[in-house]
Formats: sequence, structure tokens, C-alpha cells
Amino acid sequence: MQKHILVIPGDGIGPEVTTWGKAVLEKIAANFGHKFTFDEALMGHAGIEATGNPLPDETLAKAKASDAILFGAIGHIKYDNDPSAKVRPEQGLLKIRKELGLYANLRPIMLFDELLDASSLKPEILKGTDILFFRELTGDVYFGEKKRSEDRNTASDLMIYSRYEVERIAIKAYEAAMVRGKKLCSVDKANVLESSRLWREVVQDMAKKYPEVETEHMFIDNAAMQLVKNPKKFDVVLTANLFGDILTDEASQIAGSMGMLASASIGDGTGFFEPIHGSAHDITGQDKANPLASILSVALMLEISFGLKDEAKAITDAIDKTLKAGYRTGDIADVNTDKSKILGTIAMGQKVLE
Amino acid sequence: MQKHILVIPGDGIGPEVTTWGKAVLEKIAANFGHKFTFDEALMGHAGIEATGNPLPDETLAKAKASDAILFGAIGHIKYDNDPSAKVRPEQGLLKIRKELGLYANLRPIMLFDELLDASSLKPEILKGTDILFFRELTGDVYFGEKKRSEDRNTASDLMIYSRYEVERIAIKAYEAAMVRGKKLCSVDKANVLESSRLWREVVQDMAKKYPEVETEHMFIDNAAMQLVKNPKKFDVVLTANLFGDILTDEASQIAGSMGMLASASIGDGTGFFEPIHGSAHDITGQDKANPLASILSVALMLEISFGLKDEAKAITDAIDKTLKAGYRTGDIADVNTDKSKILGTIAMGQKVLE
Ligand SMILES: CC(C)[C@H](C(=O)O)[C@@H](O)C(=O)O
Ligand SMILES: CC(C)[C@H](C(=O)O)[C@@H](O)C(=O)O
Repeated sequence: MQKHILVIPGDGIGPEVTTWGKAVLEKIAANFGHKFTFDEALMGHAGIEATGNPLPDETLAKAKASDAILFGAIGHIKYDNDPSAKVRPEQGLLKIRKELGLYANLRPIMLFDELLDASSLKPEILKGTDILFFRELTGDVYFGEKKRSEDRNTASDLMIYSRYEVERIAIKAYEAAMVRGKKLCSVDKANVLESSRLWREVVQDMAKKYPEVETEHMFIDNAAMQLVKNPKKFDVVLTANLFGDILTDEASQIAGSMGMLASASIGDGTGFFEPIHGSAHDITGQDKANPLASILSVALMLEISFGLKDEAKAITDAIDKTLKAGYRTGDIADVNTDKSKILGTIAMGQKVLE
Repeated sequence: MQKHILVIPGDGIGPEVTTWGKAVLEKIAANFGHKFTFDEALMGHAGIEATGNPLPDETLAKAKASDAILFGAIGHIKYDNDPSAKVRPEQGLLKIRKELGLYANLRPIMLFDELLDASSLKPEILKGTDILFFRELTGDVYFGEKKRSEDRNTASDLMIYSRYEVERIAIKAYEAAMVRGKKLCSVDKANVLESSRLWREVVQDMAKKYPEVETEHMFIDNAAMQLVKNPKKFDVVLTANLFGDILTDEASQIAGSMGMLASASIGDGTGFFEPIHGSAHDITGQDKANPLASILSVALMLEISFGLKDEAKAITDAIDKTLKAGYRTGDIADVNTDKSKILGTIAMGQKVLE
């Protein structure tokens, strides 16, 4: 198989972790006889520094021309503390999601048995958890009109959904539920929000087309609670952009660390694969970042964009083996970890490659 | 002290739990020589059934005339499954919050040592946690304009804040931080939302007036994660209406159960005290609801609205004693609980009274 992959390292620890995602892709190509070619492009703070634009035109053109995109992370502390900045790194990520029509963000919460103790949740609560989130990614309050009054004392964002936007992601979520546990939980705030009431109506209609799937509707506040109380009860979770952002970060504690979670954004064209963690400026350049989320992003790319299941499995097996051998990055180490087996980004990347 | 208290039982388990809140108020009056008079009024589904209105005029009039309000719960499954219903129980609660100017919702996450094992979180993660949430309660996407297109295929809610709305709750939160741990974490989504950027600007300005308080700004997705990962790091948390709704429900797992958390809504006039749990129709009328959140709401009322600290402490001490004696309702029982000490609503209420 021949594929062209664009790597967008982005900001903070992005470059450190995508290095290992790319290395794993090269190794897979060699071992399985594929031909992967690579290109690289800028986005976020890196894009602003070089061109003044968080999503340079060249990056977008390269993205559209590639078969899949491996992304690192976005964001810079400088902008976080300056709420009045006009140009912001995150705009690059939001714009590429919109431009590529990446309306469905899949976030699988998988749990490596070896990491049961790395979580703040009790192992017996976690064991057996396997959740696949479908987060809507190109609508909601993220993309609705933003306004600031002239005196700057009032600010607003429009939370807005249209039927077709909910339908297309609901179809993807139901199709996934059909080949998984046949349970789908749709999360909204229909007791307060009109956009959530539309969301619920559409999902109720869709549920009729998938009678084999057991559909549940849950309010976001309750879902945030149930996810900690009893994560095992969830199979497929379908939700809006903002609620999905919150719930999936929360769910990262189930997997032991944000450093373990990958995500796939798909839609009309090229697929986009990235860790769910952020740019983590506090540990940038210190060889501390966990490269496993980037490597798992590559496994998702192989499976979802290229249909290469065996290759994807080879990657998760390699990670499993590395964890079984006791190796950990700092974020997933616990009191029982052999200190000599706590590795930096580079050493961990190399262990998985081997 | 002479006070007039309005009891609004509301829906579902509301009546079952407010019964015990009221009984405890009567006992406190008798023991400490106060005179508390009571009235009762309808709201939510109960209001709709009786008058067609989720907040009957009579209820609002009584509320304004009282010194404090003890509320139960709101909501009915019938409306949850019918997103197109025009009149909804929750409108009653939202309207009374707005009418009484209850802009600050205080949700203390306190942890009874006896319940350390009832949580899905590891005891060592929990121990020492003591958080006070300040949730803004009369603004945000809850009260912004709601729209539905004529073809009903597009729906929106306006997420909106004005400077004075953020200022007045920020002042309350900072004042509380000054007499607590002098740490304040403000939660927003300023990397995406304009309303959050205003929020952050206002809190940054306010922080300058409280130099002794260590201020931190956190994105909501990160906060939802940190709350599970390391709840001890939080002292006062200040956030918007929607984010506060989500975070405080999530935080209920820290206290072992939603059945343990009370909240105080304050602002321009009469204070309003309620459990954070909902109407729980699945257990209504089965003598299963945990009355402790309602009883703790009464403790908050005595302390915050009436300044009666000793009386409030008498209540938390009584609960502590009951828990130490091994008594539990079903929601806070764990594998080690003596089966004979698992009580229903009524028996638990009586134990605390004794
Ligand atoms: C960086 C930020 C804009 C982004 C989001 O909120 O979508 C991130 O948190 C994510 O989840 O991918
Ligand atoms: C019932 C509902 C409208 C309410 C809210 O979202 O504010 C509830 O969840 C709460 O937290 O008090």
C-alpha cells in the first residue's frame, strides 16, 4: 500500500511526540511492505511565529493533498493569559477541522490492564471499561457567532446545531454501536437548552432506525458523574462538541493518563489523528512527554483511514508488551513502578519500536 | 431568633427529603430556643399539575416574603423524553433563581471520613479534599436567548455574560477564599469562547484586588480531568453556570454520593437551599432516598442566611455521629457496611434527629 502522510507537529510537546508516531509508521511500512511518504507543516503558535497565521495556506493545501494527517498538540501559555489576543494558536486547529469537514471525533477509552493502578479510580471500578466517544467536532458553541459589545463589557457565543449536523454524526455512532456492545448513550442538556432538545429529537429519530441498539439519553451533569461512578456502564457515547471536550478529558483518568489517549477525526475527506493531550508547555523539551498517545494515534490512522487492522494491532501489541515489561513514562508510573524502568520520551519511543 | 421558612418540596424524591430537613429545623428551634415558622408551596411538575405553571405566582410571592427557602428537587421523566414540550418543570427552578436574584450558587464538597470508601476514587486521592464551588447561577447559556428555526431544523442558545455578572460572583468567591485556603481556581474555556475571555479578563482584574489569594485559570476540559486526578489541589473554584453544573455533579463522587451534597444559592435577597441531587424518579416513594443532602442544606441555611454557626455545627456533628455509628443509606453503603445498618430515608432521618 502506498500512502502520503502529513505530519503537523504543532506546539509544545507536539514535535517530541509526533517524532515517535512517525518513527512507528516507518517501522510498520518496513515490516509490512508498505510505502509511506511524509511531509511536514506548521500550525498553531508555530504557524503564527513563522507566517502570522495559525493555519498557513500551505499547511491547508498540504493537508488536503495528503491521505492522512498526524498531528501533535496546540496552544501556548502566552495566549492563555492574554484573553484579548486577536490571533490565537487554537484558531488553527478549529479552522482545519472545519476546512477538512472533520465532523466526527472518535475517542476510544481503552484500558491497558497494566495501568489499572495508575488511575485515581479504584481498579475494580475501572476493570472492563471500554468506551468509544463520538464527539461532534465542527459545530456547537465552538463555531457559532462570537460577539463582543463595543464597550467590551458583554460577550457572547452562539451554541447552535442543525439537524443534518446531528444526523451525520449520529449515524457514525450508531454504526459503531452495531459492531460493538449495541449500547449508545447520547449526552445533552435537553432540560435547559434548545440546541440540546433538537439534538435529542434527532437521536430519538435515529434510534428508531437502529432498533437493535439500546439507546439512553443522559444529561451532561449526570454523565460527568456516572463516568466516574461507573464507567463500565458505557459503550458508545455520542455528544456535542463542548460536552465531548469535557467528558473525554475527564475520561482520560480512566485510562490512567491523558498521555495514553488518541483520537481520530473523520468526515468528508482526509482523516486527522492526534493525542487528546495538549501542548503541555510545563514539560516541553524535557524528554518527559508520554509518546504513547501519538503512537496510538498512528494505530487509529492505520485502522480507520487505511483499513490496516493487522498493522494497527501490531502497534497496540507492542505497547502492551512494553507496559508488561514494566516500562512507564512518569505520568503512568505508580508507587509500585520499578524506578529504573521510568523512561523519558525518547527511551519509551525506542522500547516500543523494538 | 424568629424566622419564616418556605419549604418547596418540588418533584420526585423532593417531598421525602425536605420532610427531614424541616424536622431538623424544628428540632434545632426547640433545642436552641429559636422560633421558626413554616409555609409550603409548589414548583416544577407539582406546580404544573396544580396550576399549569412550573412557578405559580403564589409560590413566588411566598418566596419573596420568607427569610429562607428549603427546596427539594425538580424534574419529571415525562418531559425528559419529550424534547418538544413547551412547559417544563425546570423552568420553575430557573425562573425562581432569576426572580430572586440568586446569582451565586455555593456548593461545598465536604468529605465525611467515614465515607472515604464509598467513593469510586481511591481513599488516598480523596483524603483531605475540601472544595468550595462558586457557580454563577443567573446567566450564561441557561438564560441567553433560545431560538428554533421555523422548519424546526436549527436550534440555538446564546451563551452570554456581562462584566457585572462576573464581578459580583468573583467578589463572593474571593471573599470566601480569603477566609479559607487563599487559593482560587477560575474555570473557563477562554481558548475558544469569547464569553470565557471576558470571564477571564474580569477575574484577572479582580485578582489584583486580592493579592493574597493565589489565582489560577484553568480550561474546563482540564478542570474536569484534574478534579478526578487530584481533587486535593482545589480550594475555591469559581465558574460559570453551565461549567459549574457539570463540575459539581462530577465532584459529588468525591463526597461518595450525590446524596451527600447540599447547595446554597444567594444573591440580592432571600437565600435558597437545596440538595444538588435531582428528582430521582426511579426511587421515588420507595423510602430509598438519602435525606442527608436536605439536612445539610438546612445546616447551610442556618449558617449562611441566619448566621447560626453553632446550630449548623450541631447538625453536621449529628450526621458525623450517625455515620460513625455505621448507619448508611443505600447510596453510601459499601461492601464493608453492616447490612443491618443500611437504612431507608425515614430511619436515617430519625437517626440524625436523635
Ligand atoms: C485546544 C482546544 C481548542 C481543543 C478543543 O477544545 O477542541 C482541545 O481541547 C481538544 O479537545 O482537541
Ligand atoms: C434541574 C436543572 C435545571 C439544574 C441545573 O442545570 O441548574 C440542576 O441540574 C442543578 O444543578 O441545579
